[in-house]
Amino acid sequence: MGNCMGGVCDRPKNTNIKLSLPAVCFVWQLSMIILFGVFVRYNEESDTHWVEHKQALNITSDIENDFYFRYPSFQDVHVMIFVGFGFLMTFLKRYSFGAVGFNFLVAAFGIQWALLMQGWFHSLDYTDGKIKIGVENLINADFCVAGCLIAYGALLGKVSPVQLLVMTLFGVTLFAVEEYIILSVLHAKDAGGSMVIHTFGAYYGLSISWVLYRPNLDKSKHLNGSVYHSDVFAMIGTLFLWMFWPSFNSAIADHGDGQHRAAINTYLALASTVLTTVAMSSLFEKTGKLDMVHIQNSTLAGGVAVGTAAEFMLSPYGSLIVGFFCGIISTMGYIHLSPFLEEKLKIQDTCGIHNLHAMPGVMGGIVGAISAAAATTTVYGEHGLQNTFDFTGDFKNRVPTIQGGYQAAGLCVALCFGIGGGILVGLVLKLPIWGDPADENCYDDEIYWEVPEDEESIPPILAYSNHMIPDKHADMRETNFVEQR
Amino acid sequence: MGNCMGGVCDRPKNTNIKLSLPAVCFVWQLSMIILFGVFVRYNEESDTHWVEHKQALNITSDIENDFYFRYPSFQDVHVMIFVGFGFLMTFLKRYSFGAVGFNFLVAAFGIQWALLMQGWFHSLDYTDGKIKIGVENLINADFCVAGCLIAYGALLGKVSPVQLLVMTLFGVTLFAVEEYIILSVLHAKDAGGSMVIHTFGAYYGLSISWVLYRPNLDKSKHLNGSVYHSDVFAMIGTLFLWMFWPSFNSAIADHGDGQHRAAINTYLALASTVLTTVAMSSLFEKTGKLDMVHIQNSTLAGGVAVGTAAEFMLSPYGSLIVGFFCGIISTMGYIHLSPFLEEKLKIQDTCGIHNLHAMPGVMGGIVGAISAAAATTTVYGEHGLQNTFDFTGDFKNRVPTIQGGYQAAGLCVALCFGIGGGILVGLVLKLPIWGDPADENCYDDEIYWEVPEDEESIPPILAYSNHMIPDKHADMRETNFVEQR
Amino acid sequence: MGNCMGGVCDRPKNTNIKLSLPAVCFVWQLSMIILFGVFVRYNEESDTHWVEHKQALNITSDIENDFYFRYPSFQDVHVMIFVGFGFLMTFLKRYSFGAVGFNFLVAAFGIQWALLMQGWFHSLDYTDGKIKIGVENLINADFCVAGCLIAYGALLGKVSPVQLLVMTLFGVTLFAVEEYIILSVLHAKDAGGSMVIHTFGAYYGLSISWVLYRPNLDKSKHLNGSVYHSDVFAMIGTLFLWMFWPSFNSAIADHGDGQHRAAINTYLALASTVLTTVAMSSLFEKTGKLDMVHIQNSTLAGGVAVGTAAEFMLSPYGSLIVGFFCGIISTMGYIHLSPFLEEKLKIQDTCGIHNLHAMPGVMGGIVGAISAAAATTTVYGEHGLQNTFDFTGDFKNRVPTIQGGYQAAGLCVALCFGIGGGILVGLVLKLPIWGDPADENCYDDEIYWEVPEDEESIPPILAYSNHMIPDKHADMRETNFVEQR
Repeated sequence: MGNCMGGVCDRPKNTNIKLSLPAVCFVWQLSMIILFGVFVRYNEESDTHWVEHKQALNITSDIENDFYFRYPSFQDVHVMIFVGFGFLMTFLKRYSFGAVGFNFLVAAFGIQWALLMQGWFHSLDYTDGKIKIGVENLINADFCVAGCLIAYGALLGKVSPVQLLVMTLFGVTLFAVEEYIILSVLHAKDAGGSMVIHTFGAYYGLSISWVLYRPNLDKSKHLNGSVYHSDVFAMIGTLFLWMFWPSFNSAIADHGDGQHRAAINTYLALASTVLTTVAMSSLFEKTGKLDMVHIQNSTLAGGVAVGTAAEFMLSPYGSLIVGFFCGIISTMGYIHLSPFLEEKLKIQDTCGIHNLHAMPGVMGGIVGAISAAAATTTVYGEHGLQNTFDFTGDFKNRVPTIQGGYQAAGLCVALCFGIGGGILVGLVLKLPIWGDPADENCYDDEIYWEVPEDEESIPPILAYSNHMIPDKHADMRETNFVEQR
Repeated sequence: MGNCMGGVCDRPKNTNIKLSLPAVCFVWQLSMIILFGVFVRYNEESDTHWVEHKQALNITSDIENDFYFRYPSFQDVHVMIFVGFGFLMTFLKRYSFGAVGFNFLVAAFGIQWALLMQGWFHSLDYTDGKIKIGVENLINADFCVAGCLIAYGALLGKVSPVQLLVMTLFGVTLFAVEEYIILSVLHAKDAGGSMVIHTFGAYYGLSISWVLYRPNLDKSKHLNGSVYHSDVFAMIGTLFLWMFWPSFNSAIADHGDGQHRAAINTYLALASTVLTTVAMSSLFEKTGKLDMVHIQNSTLAGGVAVGTAAEFMLSPYGSLIVGFFCGIISTMGYIHLSPFLEEKLKIQDTCGIHNLHAMPGVMGGIVGAISAAAATTTVYGEHGLQNTFDFTGDFKNRVPTIQGGYQAAGLCVALCFGIGGGILVGLVLKLPIWGDPADENCYDDEIYWEVPEDEESIPPILAYSNHMIPDKHADMRETNFVEQR
Repeated sequence: MGNCMGGVCDRPKNTNIKLSLPAVCFVWQLSMIILFGVFVRYNEESDTHWVEHKQALNITSDIENDFYFRYPSFQDVHVMIFVGFGFLMTFLKRYSFGAVGFNFLVAAFGIQWALLMQGWFHSLDYTDGKIKIGVENLINADFCVAGCLIAYGALLGKVSPVQLLVMTLFGVTLFAVEEYIILSVLHAKDAGGSMVIHTFGAYYGLSISWVLYRPNLDKSKHLNGSVYHSDVFAMIGTLFLWMFWPSFNSAIADHGDGQHRAAINTYLALASTVLTTVAMSSLFEKTGKLDMVHIQNSTLAGGVAVGTAAEFMLSPYGSLIVGFFCGIISTMGYIHLSPFLEEKLKIQDTCGIHNLHAMPGVMGGIVGAISAAAATTTVYGEHGLQNTFDFTGDFKNRVPTIQGGYQAAGLCVALCFGIGGGILVGLVLKLPIWGDPADENCYDDEIYWEVPEDEESIPPILAYSNHMIPDKHADMRETNFVEQR
């Protein structure tokens, strides 16, 4: 795959992954089977003993099984992970297979490891040493993988699938640890994962991209752009993310008012973001034209930024305000900050995750800290305050102002894990054994996929002579072509 | 953007929206924040005081929060609004960005205003003067916006985004008023919005289109059509609308049997419509070929027409009958009525909303009136009749036959608001300040969007000389091209 | 549509369906209306008498209406049927209309007949001779149609829509009978339909394809492949099937732990399948490239194979193991078995349903039989065992080992109905009256659809002379073209 251009010869890069990719997949999947065999069991709501459990808890109806509280949200989150993230990245003209296909691979790989890692930290039954899983674990596994898929956004088109799997293996591990520290040790709240998912995931990906900096990436510049229909495909991703974000932020919120409020806040923040994104996009392009990059990405920033505070009493106008500023910041990021990051800081961020996840994620953490610190019993009620912030058990003496401080501490933890972990993992991925593409082969599905020969990419004149055009135009064409001369 | 063709010069049209679009978006969003700050709060099911509320009402489980009754339907409706309507309109070869992008903008803009307008009429808490919102308000906001998106279908490709926002501002306002008159004053029932949403929205859009008639629209005729893949994109919209229509019609129906029955009726009506649409499409094309326009649109007419009566005891075969005739009427509309509307009545209806929403909507209102008038206690039961038609409070003495009359009156209100409102708003939109495209630039994304240069639209020979074709075919091509001559 | 090539003249095939298609649709739909009028009514949960029914059963809340247990899953299944199956088959370069359009037609046609057929067997109220329907019937109708859509996968591109309707009419009928035998007579369990849906559907389609074998199908070989964007469209189908498969397998499982466990098992099996599919695909292509055919199809095999056992205590690692082997078997099938089936057994299987549904379906039946036979009260609990396998009424003395035998018998019934029924229906479809395409017109939407003229398929030079290219490139193009010579 090496090229000699302008007299300068690169050493050819070996992008053959015929051994490494199957080996990683098989070894990994076998390990998962063994570990699941040793550790993972159904929890009391997904086990056949549910009947007895129900009686013990004096639950009268099957509808109170957690499944019915969370399954619709779970499915929405599932769509965001696989269709949302996958199609959002199909915008490149010749990397749609890699976008949607590797996203699929990474997510399916990561959710298994996430069930184990998160299980050990959060769902371990100390009586028998088993992880007991139910629908909430499935949601959390999807969330955990979301962090790695965000990171993939920065690396899109520049890494091999093997690198992605390694990135995910470490990413899920780091995620589970930082999540444990933030949610359990610091007892910060983060229902929609502004800190735990978005801040961590984005800085993780940006740091890796920084370590893997490619000075000659210009060589594949002609493929780093969209075509008309690839932009429409990307809008499928955008819209499913946008529509289901209320489910994302409410999926693991408290039963009842918690889930209800999280959905409302997210709905409003996102609506507001769309308006300011369109405004900024139009304001900075000549003749006020809109840029698909902004519409595809910045419209989602409000969902990220309202993640932590979604289940708080942020109030409807508070959500609108968060969305308002996010749309502005994110679009400005695409216009001014991304070129700066690439040129000055040497961070090549294919999808602009710094604008969609990093800045809005940090903003979400700050909004969460402020709104937690400002919580009062007047607004929340005695019960409400306790429920919302789980001021129970070890934390029953905590007060909102202190909680605000711990929220801020949580944000710092996410940042540190993202940046630190990213640099370390980036160094691992720099090893020349992972089959990554040469600079001139980036953003090209040809490297890792069997790509069909498109009729369109073959000159029609030849196509005709090769009988590849439907017959009915043939005569007309030949005639016209001759007349032309 | 002006053109001189055949010696006749148009004055150039100014489609620069660099000031107007951002200005409208910012002013609007700031107004929304202020108004939400003054007026909008969480309702008792989305507020942290839910715990106390639950105790007061003697509710034993969080699962009885309205969120769990309506959230899955809400998300389905949300998908219909953003993906359904958005992608349905991507069928034009060069207006997919405008279809899905402006649909997105209009909807995000409209739902905020709808929450306020509908809130003032329906959810105002008179004790503190605040609008209290929950998941049902979100659904209703989506419904309200649906009216404006239907209207957009008539205008697709011929208006600027600023015009769309103005159209939506007035549209939502008119919608809230007619909805209040129909549902609260007349006490008509309209769970799926045949009258309130579809009849109003369609005639609103058609009237605007009539006022904005473009006699020289032929100039952009070459863009008023589909290409192969744009038709496939449109099927995404069609199918998500079709599949989730049972949720649309049941989303705000009564808890329990009401939602259940509305879903069944809609499911059946839509299935029936598909069959008759296919039959009519095949019958009127030479050699029986099917036309994508009919499959994309007329298959949905059954969902529109069963909207009002969906929660009534229409009975399964009644739903099939409604769907049967709708498929026929709607497809016939595309074949015979649309050309007539355009040539004789000067109504240019890009998506054919007259066939998909106007006629089926009116039919739905009539079906609703008849089935309400025919309701009996034998069929409904004493409780059932009272529950289904809300014969309580001020309306406790109303009987089915009278209800039928009020249903018919509701249909007239929807028609009047649609046509009257549309003409007025059309006159506003005719002002030469909104940046609408010239006749020769209609249906063209180039005007309002940064459109990527597609490889396909550049002759391959040139593309090759510009290094824009993957290298591996290059040699083969050049050789063959030479041999060809 | 006949052709004379190389001196050999085919008799022209008549693909005119202008009479037959509308006739079948109208007659059918009218029959449905009459039969629904005679037979179909709302059940006690979707009827207005729900209030009284609720009191009789001492149900305190509307949320216990079956609608709220099953509606979210129903909508997911609905998406799988219409978008999942429909878009999965859009991969062919020029058969996307037929894939998604005929899928739509077949499904809408079939669900009505399925409601009747399944209703007579399972939901007949003997007191009044009426079929009483609710949301579970809608799910089962979708399931029933899934069998026919699987069969369509084998026939894709080679049959007329009239043939598809005939195939569906018989398919649904056969399905209802085999389902009755398997579920009611044998009392086998099959929540996700590995046997009832997938095994039956796949062998039904393969048998039909065997009877309809076309020795000269090579004539349309140039259309039996994908283009870049058609492969991306197909991924929409793949992902919606993959994501919602947990809903498919849990949709009609027992309330509470049954649905919960079925979702978890399916989630895990599918994740595992993705990894082994990727591994096998990479292992068997040169330089380890991935093949979209495998990613689009084999990744789904785990969902099929875990169908029967999804609601059993398969345990999480058991699900992973099932998925592990399925990915391997299915991908190997595409690589080695499909060519063998076509060349040696004369079975032309367009979508490779043998690899996606037939083999995994049989595997699912076997897994179900084994895991049923191995069930113990230690694992399930006394109540749990009884609930899960419905050891009540006539079957209260059945024990797990015997149940395992009946499960195996169920698999045989599905196979027999699939193969036997397929051969008989294939013979009916071989009659020369159904308007099927000639060998050289297979896989071509032109035959049954009005297909838009794509700009891309016309040589740009001619397109320019016909004013079909955006003006702004025109001058540049002409100049360059001249310079080129």
